[in-house]
Amino acid sequence: MSFNSFGRVFRFTTWGESHGPAIGAVVDGCPPGLDLSEADIQPWLDLRKPGTSKFTTQRREADEVRILSGVFEGRTTGTPISLMIENTDQRSKDYSDVAKAYRPGHADYAYDAKYGFRDYRGGGRSSARETASRVAAGAVARAVIPEVDIFAYVSEIGGDAIDYANFDASQIGQNPFFCPDPAAAARWEVLVDGARKDGSSIGAVVECVASGVPAGWGAPLYAKLDSELAAAMMSINAVKGVEIGDGFAAARLRGEQNADPMRPGKDGPVFLANHAGGIAGGIATGQPIKVRIAFKPTSSILIPVETVTREGEASEIITKGRHDPCVGIRGVPVVEAMMALVLADQKLLHRAQCGERAGD
Amino acid sequence: MSFNSFGRVFRFTTWGESHGPAIGAVVDGCPPGLDLSEADIQPWLDLRKPGTSKFTTQRREADEVRILSGVFEGRTTGTPISLMIENTDQRSKDYSDVAKAYRPGHADYAYDAKYGFRDYRGGGRSSARETASRVAAGAVARAVIPEVDIFAYVSEIGGDAIDYANFDASQIGQNPFFCPDPAAAARWEVLVDGARKDGSSIGAVVECVASGVPAGWGAPLYAKLDSELAAAMMSINAVKGVEIGDGFAAARLRGEQNADPMRPGKDGPVFLANHAGGIAGGIATGQPIKVRIAFKPTSSILIPVETVTREGEASEIITKGRHDPCVGIRGVPVVEAMMALVLADQKLLHRAQCGERAGD
Amino acid sequence: MSFNSFGRVFRFTTWGESHGPAIGAVVDGCPPGLDLSEADIQPWLDLRKPGTSKFTTQRREADEVRILSGVFEGRTTGTPISLMIENTDQRSKDYSDVAKAYRPGHADYAYDAKYGFRDYRGGGRSSARETASRVAAGAVARAVIPEVDIFAYVSEIGGDAIDYANFDASQIGQNPFFCPDPAAAARWEVLVDGARKDGSSIGAVVECVASGVPAGWGAPLYAKLDSELAAAMMSINAVKGVEIGDGFAAARLRGEQNADPMRPGKDGPVFLANHAGGIAGGIATGQPIKVRIAFKPTSSILIPVETVTREGEASEIITKGRHDPCVGIRGVPVVEAMMALVLADQKLLHRAQCGERAGD
Amino acid sequence: MSFNSFGRVFRFTTWGESHGPAIGAVVDGCPPGLDLSEADIQPWLDLRKPGTSKFTTQRREADEVRILSGVFEGRTTGTPISLMIENTDQRSKDYSDVAKAYRPGHADYAYDAKYGFRDYRGGGRSSARETASRVAAGAVARAVIPEVDIFAYVSEIGGDAIDYANFDASQIGQNPFFCPDPAAAARWEVLVDGARKDGSSIGAVVECVASGVPAGWGAPLYAKLDSELAAAMMSINAVKGVEIGDGFAAARLRGEQNADPMRPGKDGPVFLANHAGGIAGGIATGQPIKVRIAFKPTSSILIPVETVTREGEASEIITKGRHDPCVGIRGVPVVEAMMALVLADQKLLHRAQCGERAGD
Repeated sequence: MSFNSFGRVFRFTTWGESHGPAIGAVVDGCPPGLDLSEADIQPWLDLRKPGTSKFTTQRREADEVRILSGVFEGRTTGTPISLMIENTDQRSKDYSDVAKAYRPGHADYAYDAKYGFRDYRGGGRSSARETASRVAAGAVARAVIPEVDIFAYVSEIGGDAIDYANFDASQIGQNPFFCPDPAAAARWEVLVDGARKDGSSIGAVVECVASGVPAGWGAPLYAKLDSELAAAMMSINAVKGVEIGDGFAAARLRGEQNADPMRPGKDGPVFLANHAGGIAGGIATGQPIKVRIAFKPTSSILIPVETVTREGEASEIITKGRHDPCVGIRGVPVVEAMMALVLADQKLLHRAQCGERAGD
Repeated sequence: MSFNSFGRVFRFTTWGESHGPAIGAVVDGCPPGLDLSEADIQPWLDLRKPGTSKFTTQRREADEVRILSGVFEGRTTGTPISLMIENTDQRSKDYSDVAKAYRPGHADYAYDAKYGFRDYRGGGRSSARETASRVAAGAVARAVIPEVDIFAYVSEIGGDAIDYANFDASQIGQNPFFCPDPAAAARWEVLVDGARKDGSSIGAVVECVASGVPAGWGAPLYAKLDSELAAAMMSINAVKGVEIGDGFAAARLRGEQNADPMRPGKDGPVFLANHAGGIAGGIATGQPIKVRIAFKPTSSILIPVETVTREGEASEIITKGRHDPCVGIRGVPVVEAMMALVLADQKLLHRAQCGERAGD
Repeated sequence: MSFNSFGRVFRFTTWGESHGPAIGAVVDGCPPGLDLSEADIQPWLDLRKPGTSKFTTQRREADEVRILSGVFEGRTTGTPISLMIENTDQRSKDYSDVAKAYRPGHADYAYDAKYGFRDYRGGGRSSARETASRVAAGAVARAVIPEVDIFAYVSEIGGDAIDYANFDASQIGQNPFFCPDPAAAARWEVLVDGARKDGSSIGAVVECVASGVPAGWGAPLYAKLDSELAAAMMSINAVKGVEIGDGFAAARLRGEQNADPMRPGKDGPVFLANHAGGIAGGIATGQPIKVRIAFKPTSSILIPVETVTREGEASEIITKGRHDPCVGIRGVPVVEAMMALVLADQKLLHRAQCGERAGD
Repeated sequence: MSFNSFGRVFRFTTWGESHGPAIGAVVDGCPPGLDLSEADIQPWLDLRKPGTSKFTTQRREADEVRILSGVFEGRTTGTPISLMIENTDQRSKDYSDVAKAYRPGHADYAYDAKYGFRDYRGGGRSSARETASRVAAGAVARAVIPEVDIFAYVSEIGGDAIDYANFDASQIGQNPFFCPDPAAAARWEVLVDGARKDGSSIGAVVECVASGVPAGWGAPLYAKLDSELAAAMMSINAVKGVEIGDGFAAARLRGEQNADPMRPGKDGPVFLANHAGGIAGGIATGQPIKVRIAFKPTSSILIPVETVTREGEASEIITKGRHDPCVGIRGVPVVEAMMALVLADQKLLHRAQCGERAGD
């Protein structure tokens, strides 16, 4: 396996720098015969497009995807699907200070230590724009798993959480925060605007639910569904924590409090709780899969922070240019895309090993 | 890639069921010429051995490892290293009830849904004993990364946390809880004993620190160090959450609070904080790597829980036999082993890509 | 991917040195529910067992396989299957001269150059005995592809070829050469015995046919069926050439001579020829798959050959001990095993990607 | 691992259909700091460009490569390198007959059996144009292995072989056949022109030599250098046979005839022969690596061949349009590219495992 690929059968490789001519992804292992066109992918990118509100980055991008291969007469051929998004708005001049000093919290110093030099423009490859290719690849994945419904939302910004009693899924697309609680959305408008005006940034928590996953997907141990989800989510820029089901809250419970009892039902057992978040022993139980993801506040801020130059001298850094005060918000479509990508791969893996299962 | 292997260059595959004749691991890609014998591996297994305190499972095991290949005259040959541990204590009769009904929280139901049947003895492959092979493999990994120091400890049981002001690393091996705070250890004795007497179980949080990792290991995106660590830790039985550095706490901070400022130092920059937990943009910064892992309480309890039989009828289940009231405790050596395994792989990957780096 | 694993979904990893305590394989990704026991594997190893004729190595081995995991109540569980064969006959003392000088044609010099030292006993890991683990793994693979019939035979020894007009498959198991032409078998008795008496060795060509492979297995390009078969066969010790169908003979033909015309048939097209050897564009056509493999004569001979010592001084080497005058003969069960292993993997890969194909 | 990627650390994934908008490759794992620009890649594509002689396809292509990522200020960054070549000359109308019937020898029938339908335009993905992306990726690989010199040539067309006594490497680029023997080149002019006029095609044999490979690259067994080379070459369109060193000729020799004796030399042993073709036990010996590849005659010919339609009715097929009478000629740059790609990967793998070898 190389460094920049993800998945085992349904596999994607992304490429592209934030300030290079284009970014893209190659999706491999997609089953043939699925309907696919740019129109199936573009909406998911538009959901992600900056400039839609003052709360996200002020970069104006078309983010228009092209399918360069793998589709014929509107259906996937089973061969690699190459997706490309050209970078139309790159304003490199905003980053002149950055070339000389390391931005604390960014990968600058680590990059230099690894590679000996770095592409200082924007975030190079570890920038949030790389996620556009993931969102595009995720749209292809969704075509593989029509039986699954995926949605994500922001549940917390800067420690201010939604009230689950007010949870209204239909509200998620109705505000700039992907927030299912209108009262929280109103508070966040003040909170995030405040951070932006201070030239600061703020962290967030995103939750993602996948319903309709049949019991059985996943495999015990290393291709475990929860393990793969953890890797997928942690690979998103700015993510510092991943939970499945109750997560760290489960660590504070007793066994009988954490159990998910079962009762007989018409089409299989009915679960009375879902502390496990839909995954037990690395395999889907049939219950909704619940993942919770922590986004740290971005380090690209206007408040000066002590740093060193490449030559090792003391310096301060202010990252000018256009930035997200809350990258977690833009993480929502990316989280959904990663959920889709992992589940598509798991579906095909399950089919590979158990397609002709001889049962009891 | 298969289902039960982990790593890209330094790779290990585990095998074996809890109640089968043996368990083991094959470690591949190990550099040649490293000193290795059973004596280098056995101590790590002994650290894990049940029966050392009344707080862990009452199974008596030799857990004696044999090296069957890959070593010649006391040094690794570079060829696959096969490790085997024979199961000497298996008391299958404790599991007769389990064959008929699903234990909520265990993988029983999910396993059946995937495979059509299951090996009901103990936890089969998703049992905690499988971790013995990981601990053995981890010992081999440590030989690859002598420059790194790894230690883990329990920081919280059932919501009762250590006091970092009382942190004393030398205490970790001095109590049955791998606890660095003697006061907390005393409280936990009561807490865990209570859970055991109630026939219940209790969750825990484990923290792991790796010092001496040179800046540069890791790669941006999918072979990201934090992504690989997340996958590795989430793959441990009963883990439901993983954090790097501040984790979910970072989600509540502002950018300037979360920053890790740098000052010039003799041998490279000196960091003034480590909110990032030693990893930025997927690459090690040279700071200690900090990972925090949430263990849920085991579902193997004596308190009856509603469930269904294989035929779909209502039932109750009590899991008799010998069980850990707190599996998180036994998770400590496993967490250390996984940290070693990931770092060994990352070291070799870094060497592969950047061994002859042409810098500035 | 590591160094010593093969396959993508149905994957096996071998381990073990010729003169170590044991050799074995871990087979991963096997579908669950298949009948499997030692009795299904042992016959294939016995077919391979040395000492059955004076024409193969005079090592006496039990070559008894044990299944250590992955099987429960006689059926595969879907978890990794660990196979082990203990080495009972190792006579290390035969190899004392070898420690000091390099055997030309063996990997000795190359091994030293790579690893800095080598396990000189027997062939270490590149010995022919390692193939026993492959044969065992191949037996598991056969359980995955019951629709396929595989057989291999020796078609040529030392340039002396069989007469296809006398081809009688039932003869293959009736002589020590896996030869389908009794007249050739009689000639080979003289040829091989002569090489043995001269202390020399002789090369061979093995052909393998797999019938019943449904059209469609394989994928264009890198997971191409012919590419995977080439890798699999070339990985066998002493193999120096692989052909599919007409192979090098096709290079001498014109297009219309090499074509495989088709006519309508009851259950799909009927092919009028099979120059392609059952594979076109990397995908099975439904015709018998035909592979031809060249084995060089082993370098372990009694005739002195110029070489150098580890210190770089001129020397001569005679490899005493017990050796095959014609390793190609023992290659037959290994070739069949590799065919089975590749086809099992390709079947699962095809199922993964095309299990629910939406056609025209 | 997916279907369309090759390599383990230095890895490339190709995409693109012959008649789609573009073709390309993503190269991953490339060491950073290497000089790379379009000017380093374009010459290798030009060498391959059709229309340079009447003996190759009459498609007029610019075949101009663009580097879309992974390079900054003229050097590789270590991140994925995306290469793209736009298709400027596609004349789809030549293929209207092909949509209805299967071309014998092409993958048409097999494709349909696998996927349920196919992209009939040109050869879709299994077309020879896909190799342009490989040649581009191969140019990147060459930058990783500056110590290695690679060249390939045609040694035989339609059974008519070069005379090694007349071998003149400087002649290879001086005729349309990559032929090192001027006398043979003159004969081939007649031979190939005849095939073209007959509307037929003709097979060829290509040989490739890599010098300067240090002893030690490669690994025993599955990442064996010869195994990887076999897979790489067999994956090239129209290849039906691969040999290393003496190949099938070795099968006719005795041990002492096939031996490569060694004598002491100033910088390590001097080999007196190279029957092994530079590889022993899967590891490079330091001698030139020699591979021989058989290309079948293409099935795209004007001579009618019996076939069936998609509906199963008898038919005949003539493949109009523009075609190579001898695809083996165009295979030469592709063979060189695959040699470079495998060696680059092997170099990095060797560095990964043995970079800090503790020797004797």
